Amino acid sequence: MQQPTMNGAQALIETLAQGGVELCLANPGTSEMHLVQALDQTPAMRSVLTLFEGVCTGAADGYGRMMGKPAATLLHLGPGLANGIANLHNARKAATPLINIVGNHPQYHMGYDAPLTSDIDILARNFSAWTKSCSTAQTLAQDGAEAISASLRANPGSLGQIATLIMGADAAWEQSLGPVASNPIPARARVNQTQVDTVAQLLAKGEKSVLLLERHALQPAALEAAARIRQKTGCRLITGTFPARIDGGPGAVQVERMPYFPEQILSTLEGTRHLVLVGAQAPASFFAYQNLSGRPIPDECSTITLARIEEDAIDALEQLADALDATHVEILRFEKQTLEYKSGPLNTRSISQVIAACLPQGAIVSTDSGGGNAAYPACQFAAPHSWLSLTGGSIGQGGPAATGAALACPDRPVLALLGDGGAAYTIQCLWTQARENLNVTTVIYANRSYNILNVEYARLGVTDVGSTAASLFDIGNPEIDWVAMAKSMGVPGATATTTEELDRLLRASFAETGPFLIQAQC
Amino acid sequence: MQQPTMNGAQALIETLAQGGVELCLANPGTSEMHLVQALDQTPAMRSVLTLFEGVCTGAADGYGRMMGKPAATLLHLGPGLANGIANLHNARKAATPLINIVGNHPQYHMGYDAPLTSDIDILARNFSAWTKSCSTAQTLAQDGAEAISASLRANPGSLGQIATLIMGADAAWEQSLGPVASNPIPARARVNQTQVDTVAQLLAKGEKSVLLLERHALQPAALEAAARIRQKTGCRLITGTFPARIDGGPGAVQVERMPYFPEQILSTLEGTRHLVLVGAQAPASFFAYQNLSGRPIPDECSTITLARIEEDAIDALEQLADALDATHVEILRFEKQTLEYKSGPLNTRSISQVIAACLPQGAIVSTDSGGGNAAYPACQFAAPHSWLSLTGGSIGQGGPAATGAALACPDRPVLALLGDGGAAYTIQCLWTQARENLNVTTVIYANRSYNILNVEYARLGVTDVGSTAASLFDIGNPEIDWVAMAKSMGVPGATATTTEELDRLLRASFAETGPFLIQAQC
Repeated sequence: MQQPTMNGAQALIETLAQGGVELCLANPGTSEMHLVQALDQTPAMRSVLTLFEGVCTGAADGYGRMMGKPAATLLHLGPGLANGIANLHNARKAATPLINIVGNHPQYHMGYDAPLTSDIDILARNFSAWTKSCSTAQTLAQDGAEAISASLRANPGSLGQIATLIMGADAAWEQSLGPVASNPIPARARVNQTQVDTVAQLLAKGEKSVLLLERHALQPAALEAAARIRQKTGCRLITGTFPARIDGGPGAVQVERMPYFPEQILSTLEGTRHLVLVGAQAPASFFAYQNLSGRPIPDECSTITLARIEEDAIDALEQLADALDATHVEILRFEKQTLEYKSGPLNTRSISQVIAACLPQGAIVSTDSGGGNAAYPACQFAAPHSWLSLTGGSIGQGGPAATGAALACPDRPVLALLGDGGAAYTIQCLWTQARENLNVTTVIYANRSYNILNVEYARLGVTDVGSTAASLFDIGNPEIDWVAMAKSMGVPGATATTTEELDRLLRASFAETGPFLIQAQC
Repeated sequence: MQQPTMNGAQALIETLAQGGVELCLANPGTSEMHLVQALDQTPAMRSVLTLFEGVCTGAADGYGRMMGKPAATLLHLGPGLANGIANLHNARKAATPLINIVGNHPQYHMGYDAPLTSDIDILARNFSAWTKSCSTAQTLAQDGAEAISASLRANPGSLGQIATLIMGADAAWEQSLGPVASNPIPARARVNQTQVDTVAQLLAKGEKSVLLLERHALQPAALEAAARIRQKTGCRLITGTFPARIDGGPGAVQVERMPYFPEQILSTLEGTRHLVLVGAQAPASFFAYQNLSGRPIPDECSTITLARIEEDAIDALEQLADALDATHVEILRFEKQTLEYKSGPLNTRSISQVIAACLPQGAIVSTDSGGGNAAYPACQFAAPHSWLSLTGGSIGQGGPAATGAALACPDRPVLALLGDGGAAYTIQCLWTQARENLNVTTVIYANRSYNILNVEYARLGVTDVGSTAASLFDIGNPEIDWVAMAKSMGVPGATATTTEELDRLLRASFAETGPFLIQAQC
């Protein structure tokens, strides 16, 4: 009996599907036609089309943060990948597992310098932890299996990195050896006992200390252990400014969040003697400023690492709790409060209050804006939720990440809190939300400006803003009609100008399936 | 008397303005605040804001093709540059002069690995002919002057390349030595007489020959010389498939255009014995196909280069005409015809006929779609015009390029012919058109699909298209309402379903100032 044959594309897609990759976010072109054919033949892999690659990659990031495993993207040569890089940058900073499949010409075609020819590898190196190009049909499935392993850096935990497979069309269309099994994912490295003991001795002194928690140290089990350590030693728990994902709200461990500006970070850490990094980097100023240090840590504060980014932060914190005999102590948790707001016009503060008052159980909140982040503290007293932040500073991430989170968790309400400047970058995500009937409620903070730049310009000491500078921060000429924009892509929407209107629209949207957009005039 | 001082940003912007750079397309962020301040203080440089960097770079490409000199872009670190790369890829393939200024952290801030930190240089290498990073305030103006020289590769002609200046914020804010003068641009290299004589002898044989004309060989003076050579020797004149810019229409030299698919190229060249490259690359298949050669040139056809891309094609063709004594011959030109169309529904063919019938004198046509290109032949008999093509195959270029062309040539009507798939990539260009009241008429070919992919999928021999594949080519679920989309960004618009409606809307738009969008249902 003759063996059934399959081409490289089929073997790759089968390998990914068998390895647990269930979603492909696609912007295909001619060089990816055999991959499209393979997707057509592999029902275990869901294919979702976007209108722009920045939506693909941002959605894959949101999906990966919620699922703890990679989605695949399907991108068209160098320019297709380039369009996705900004959100891949954010995904890299979030330590999201993610696999890019980038179509390319066969190697033998490169010398003709056809119009779409460019150096794709060099682009991929900007954000990828693993890249592979020049696969053959016979190696392609194996390369896909390695991409899975590379993207899931270590167990346990949802953290990973970006693997980029640049695939010549001939590797897709020629005959393969069939799918292969993916490799087991190695365990995270454990921190050694000496390091735990050193930190335990520091904390036992009772001097003012902070555990700075990021990435793996934000997993619920890590936060539970950290909370016991706090109860025992009096240390504070603080997350980074922009945690990739943190599950908060009533019942979750109380934890502070580091502010944005370096002078605020310094103020937060004032008097701290020991800063303990757990899965975290030392605080840095988001941008450099002319007369400020880039390292906003008080002079009298020493920094010590309990667990490096790649180490097992849960285990390290549990070891530390044991060393401190912090096993049977009470844990300080956020508690539900009755949240109220006044009638009146919308501004960042009143929008935050309304959002907290309306937040449904199990919501996923995705935001890449200052306005959206302002709602974070109040939401801790509202309802259990997952919060996804802009990790890499590249705006246009919140809407796509919300789209991916909704694909990952169809039963949870998703709330995208977007500045109008950032929303304009990747507004095409609304179309995919409509097409897939995703439960995403988008709130646009329509303040008609790149407001952070007004703030930053003032920080330079400029008090007399000229017409050119003013125009470069102003997106109110013309004003974008976000409701009309949403409707043009099949997403219903409405404008809120008061807190009551916003409340009513939010609750109505959460009660319905499918996407909805609210233009919050502020 | 104390010398007046200026910071690096001011010295850079002054240097660019004094060097003839009149336009800055900007998406600034915090690291570019001092550049914004410098723009505020330099009225000779016009600053235009876009909502997305792909619009910046595509507009700079359109501007450069029309002006023969660079615009500057102002981009925000690695992600801001990444968002602009797809259209920089197109600009590179078009040989457009263009200067990117990319803000970055100061070098001393890089080690903190702040969220927006990434390897910007590696991204820039994908498309730049010249890059510079780590300027100091004292070198920044000189680096800007060098960027001008690098972008204008050689005189005469509008061709150039991309220069990318990656600028740490400290170079902008610290004290400079003031602006500097830019360097003279070297003359293009002349081809040597031996090469001209060799080609002359070939052509004189009277065997079937083709002059393949691209880039510098598409300048009007080059086409005039080429037309004399044709008249004398019987050779054919053919442009590449996607000329960056060609000025055509009645009065312009008659010239053929190479088709898209490799089998069509082979058929066009059938029987040709000598293919003479003038500023052109040898024909290549746009994509690789499984059973087709990537080099669609008949076996019996030899290829010879008259002028390489960087050489003076005008001079080479004039030398060749002289060598062939083709100095006083008649030149075959396109002639004006009365163009008609039938009443009826819209399809690619009928839209082409209406566009040709309505084309105003001096129009600039920008297209990145197959539908738009189909209007090219008929327009040659309509009115003198400039035609801008998609040179690098990355869609989402036509609208931004039209925006830049309108900024370059405010007195000429600009017509953007966009597929709906490509338009969705960079639709934010409409907002800049509204803000700057640009004379751009956009026609969206609303066929609700990535139609080229239907064609390409069929070329694989697939006759049974499954639901997943079909969904990945279909953008009709939901249908985008392009008129509502345009209005949401301040651009009026209307839908045409018949040839008469399209005619009426086109003429009305050309008669008015400011942008307009027509959704052509086809």
